[in-house]
Amino acid sequence: MGALDEGHYDVELGNGVNLGGCSELGFEEEPETLAIEEAVKVLLQGLGEDFNREGLRKTPLRVAKALREGTRGYKQNVKDVVSGALFPEAGLESRVGHAGGAGGLVIVRDLDLFSTCESCLLPFQVKCHVGYVPSGRRVVGLSKLSRVAEVFGKRLQEPQRLANEICAALQQGIKPTGVAVVLQCSHIHFPNFESALFDPNHKGWVKMLVRSGSGVFDNENTADIWTDFLSLLRFRGINIEDVCSRVSNNKSWCPSHTFCRAAASDSAMLGAVASILCSLGEDPSRKELVETPTRFVKWLMNFKNTNLDLKLNGFVRSKRDSLTSNGDFSYEEHLCSELNLSFWSQCEHHLLPFHGVVHIGYYGSNGFSPVGKSFLQSIVHLYGFKLQVQERLTRQIAETVSSFLGEDIIVVVEASHTCMISRGIEKFGSSTATIAVLGRFSTDPSARAKFLQIIPNSSPCEG
Amino acid sequence: MGALDEGHYDVELGNGVNLGGCSELGFEEEPETLAIEEAVKVLLQGLGEDFNREGLRKTPLRVAKALREGTRGYKQNVKDVVSGALFPEAGLESRVGHAGGAGGLVIVRDLDLFSTCESCLLPFQVKCHVGYVPSGRRVVGLSKLSRVAEVFGKRLQEPQRLANEICAALQQGIKPTGVAVVLQCSHIHFPNFESALFDPNHKGWVKMLVRSGSGVFDNENTADIWTDFLSLLRFRGINIEDVCSRVSNNKSWCPSHTFCRAAASDSAMLGAVASILCSLGEDPSRKELVETPTRFVKWLMNFKNTNLDLKLNGFVRSKRDSLTSNGDFSYEEHLCSELNLSFWSQCEHHLLPFHGVVHIGYYGSNGFSPVGKSFLQSIVHLYGFKLQVQERLTRQIAETVSSFLGEDIIVVVEASHTCMISRGIEKFGSSTATIAVLGRFSTDPSARAKFLQIIPNSSPCEG
Repeated sequence: MGALDEGHYDVELGNGVNLGGCSELGFEEEPETLAIEEAVKVLLQGLGEDFNREGLRKTPLRVAKALREGTRGYKQNVKDVVSGALFPEAGLESRVGHAGGAGGLVIVRDLDLFSTCESCLLPFQVKCHVGYVPSGRRVVGLSKLSRVAEVFGKRLQEPQRLANEICAALQQGIKPTGVAVVLQCSHIHFPNFESALFDPNHKGWVKMLVRSGSGVFDNENTADIWTDFLSLLRFRGINIEDVCSRVSNNKSWCPSHTFCRAAASDSAMLGAVASILCSLGEDPSRKELVETPTRFVKWLMNFKNTNLDLKLNGFVRSKRDSLTSNGDFSYEEHLCSELNLSFWSQCEHHLLPFHGVVHIGYYGSNGFSPVGKSFLQSIVHLYGFKLQVQERLTRQIAETVSSFLGEDIIVVVEASHTCMISRGIEKFGSSTATIAVLGRFSTDPSARAKFLQIIPNSSPCEG
Repeated sequence: MGALDEGHYDVELGNGVNLGGCSELGFEEEPETLAIEEAVKVLLQGLGEDFNREGLRKTPLRVAKALREGTRGYKQNVKDVVSGALFPEAGLESRVGHAGGAGGLVIVRDLDLFSTCESCLLPFQVKCHVGYVPSGRRVVGLSKLSRVAEVFGKRLQEPQRLANEICAALQQGIKPTGVAVVLQCSHIHFPNFESALFDPNHKGWVKMLVRSGSGVFDNENTADIWTDFLSLLRFRGINIEDVCSRVSNNKSWCPSHTFCRAAASDSAMLGAVASILCSLGEDPSRKELVETPTRFVKWLMNFKNTNLDLKLNGFVRSKRDSLTSNGDFSYEEHLCSELNLSFWSQCEHHLLPFHGVVHIGYYGSNGFSPVGKSFLQSIVHLYGFKLQVQERLTRQIAETVSSFLGEDIIVVVEASHTCMISRGIEKFGSSTATIAVLGRFSTDPSARAKFLQIIPNSSPCEG
């Protein structure tokens, strides 16, 4: 394509052109970025990784960019966002009741945001609903409600504070009769390796619903206006009782509060995380952040490479031996499958989670797996709990299961990548599918097609 | 909030900090921006508007920003996007079949994009699915597939060319065994005033499915690899037969090709649109763009203010007279409603469409409207077909229908705003609700609640 050959992008940037796009360029030389890069190298070393290996070489820079992009709200200011977007609108204070939208409630619903959990530094997803009752004969441009929410979303947060800050900022910026904010927050609940293996009922998400109100929404006697607001959300899938009853229990929403692992924490790694917090403009001694380095390092140590590789080798060899000695394993013409094996992994390019499901197809005797679903699930977890890329995970699972299930193997991995939604590109709802095929599945399209047909038609990795 | 008082955003910008965010700042002084602003003023004048009235004062700048943001892909270049994101991955050329995702297909699904229709300059929505078969022992970072799609989406496009350009650029940038692109495109089909009034079956969207393939996807004998690719999409809601059969009929997808209106085109307005095309870096004499100014101006003239105001006055007065002379109109204690009246309007802040549904509640005799649904629908269209803001539309409808339906009126407007999804903030799936209440509905929360309960729980304005 022409675009590949034009090569005038740099020239444009040299001219200082900024079209407001989410460019990945710039700020690489700033001390904060460099400090985060150094800290990430410490973390990679703590994981037993070589940060000079090809796949990881740019990871420190990518992590630094993602973290600074994800917390750019510290450098933004609501006054700049709102100013120039307040529009005079007639009818507001006329004496015909709350005449007009200019006197009535204005609600923007279903704004998708990402924020960063101050407890564990993982992103959490927010569906944000904002409303206000105009006053002073003016309304605000609708997009500004979203932009103000982004300013506070792009900081280290927990749900109730995020709601309160959005609400207070809009109240001060627009000076309306009242502001209401409802947030539906989803935090990934990444299991540790043991619970992934042994707790089949592990819930992958912690959800929380919070609200905040100011002005007419802050008054004890204004349940009616909240009823109006929530009525207009309820038919978007929110239940009023839920919001009202679940407001108070916001104590330990982050799963890392209950996350427990006996590893002694590495002080260099803890220091590295504290230094990242400083570089983002935060104070690591702020009450809510004191334990954050410990929690983040504990979580990260889930993906320490070496132990798992040892486990895996022993695990696989012993199983293979037992199968061989039994000798009752024959391949026949039955397409067999194990579908929807869950996996949890860590993207080595961004140090962010990706997770989803694995589908395995093979030819076996009478549709009966010689190794059992739980064994296959263990293989999947063993390859998941390390720094990975989805393409490699898919291939490794295919090659490993072929020792047990024969040479005809197809593996499909469907995943949701946090790095696709929490960074600049913010592609909410996107997902990634990869395939690996061995033996007959690589040469016989009808075998592939037959297997692909039976994969269930549901979304693999809902937030 | 602290953020309101910090005021160091400008300082940060002065230091050249660019965190890659979608800042609205910068480039306001550039000649292209200024030229578009001047052109928009000409268009507003052609619509009979005063571009100095408060609501429109910043519209030229907003339109210029939105258009330049929406076409920033002209200044971007795929080589820069992809370079540094190609990762070596083992297993690719080993002799164990297409072993591993590194040898198999990699697909990123459900990327939401917006592009701009070269025929009419309105945005169209794209759900983009991209796949490739790696080669040369390397895979590309997943987010790059999305970024490359954005480069070409952010230009003036039509679906098939967009698919072809994404495909060819990825083929050249990654040099894989093959690339496949499937796009599901939705173009708003804005009715003209007459068809809105008289065609109850008007479909609000034109949909189109296109695909493009290169390498192994470009070969006539590789239906099998397409089957694999489409199988992995089908369980995301895409039907294979649809893609295969509907590839060819891409002739007149843009509804403006059939859009016909007898107004003589204003040459100053036509010149203004041509100048906008130049400012975006396009050639207005390019074959596909020759008719674009005519189509855009025709579409815009839907919203010429004066004619409709005259029509409206006559329309409303005659109806009111007829009701008064009949004298059979009494208010009783029955809550009545007309739900899901469709509306189409034009955001005066961005000159972009917004559309959705209006719900009207009132108290009438035996639940029977004295004026009829089609009359209310006409009122809604009359207020829709002009430069508007949703808050004002809501109030105007409430005040007007109160002449016919009594003093107790509630109006809820639910809308999807193109300006919320096609510009910097790109909040796909967001929607806006506004309420106006008169008489009893403003004082009696239970009356409001009763009406809000009956509003259907469905999304008002699907794309």
